[in-house]
Amino acid sequence: MQIRKAQASDGPAILEIILPVIREGATYSLDPNMSEVAALAYWMNAEKDTFVAEENDDIVGTYFIRPNQGGGGGHVCNCGYMTRASSIGRGVARSMCQHSLAYARERGYRAMQFNFVVSTNERAVRQWQSLGFEIVGRLPAAFRHPTHGYVDALVMYQPL
Amino acid sequence: MQIRKAQASDGPAILEIILPVIREGATYSLDPNMSEVAALAYWMNAEKDTFVAEENDDIVGTYFIRPNQGGGGGHVCNCGYMTRASSIGRGVARSMCQHSLAYARERGYRAMQFNFVVSTNERAVRQWQSLGFEIVGRLPAAFRHPTHGYVDALVMYQPL
Repeated sequence: MQIRKAQASDGPAILEIILPVIREGATYSLDPNMSEVAALAYWMNAEKDTFVAEENDDIVGTYFIRPNQGGGGGHVCNCGYMTRASSIGRGVARSMCQHSLAYARERGYRAMQFNFVVSTNERAVRQWQSLGFEIVGRLPAAFRHPTHGYVDALVMYQPL
Repeated sequence: MQIRKAQASDGPAILEIILPVIREGATYSLDPNMSEVAALAYWMNAEKDTFVAEENDDIVGTYFIRPNQGGGGGHVCNCGYMTRASSIGRGVARSMCQHSLAYARERGYRAMQFNFVVSTNERAVRQWQSLGFEIVGRLPAAFRHPTHGYVDALVMYQPL
């Protein structure tokens, strides 16, 4: 698997990955009905570095990294990761997260923060914990899950 | 004190309040060097409802309220409050927060979240606690304070 910076021409492949996740509305706090243009503009924009994970010329995952806050909070970064549905369970998210941690260190970030990990996304929570993140906050009933109703969201954090 | 929706013509008075706070860089994670245009665009924009607190025709404080997340997180709101330097200690922030809690309930929000309360801003932390907020998360060394160096930031939360 190769992870590289996304280019504008990757837009359609990125959309194929992120749209189903957004439409499902179970893991990201984004409007499930947002337009394709808005979805891509959320994932790739001037404030983010966006990457893609490639395997045999197929894009199997994508992630972004950005400063989580401005000013005195600019040394903490934030990332979002999405894996192509047909590639889930094969270590794509793990590889992307490891890549992002290395990239963040290179860029001088001192910590990485996930602001809103939906607590029912247990695979993700365990994955991030195994990669060094700790749960530093719990937001009670902060997410309305399409099938589970109101569930907690977690804040996860890792000094770099 | 009267609290009302901000109008475009309140821009200069709002800037007089928010610019010194932004320039100081001690309580908000915003670029201390941001332009006046960027500062006002941050505080008043299409995604926020912005209010001003008036006393004898003087604007002594301002706050915004917005959904903290999209999609399944849209029932939790977020606010930012700033008081005119010469009016600090006279209950302006308290009144604005009470106003925002009532407004949030009216609008159907189910919780209010502060994402990033700088831990050295002890007056604010105590104020929010006295108004029903709990510290639900602690972000270690997430804020670089202009005089104290790296300090924790707090996530505070209140169901409505």
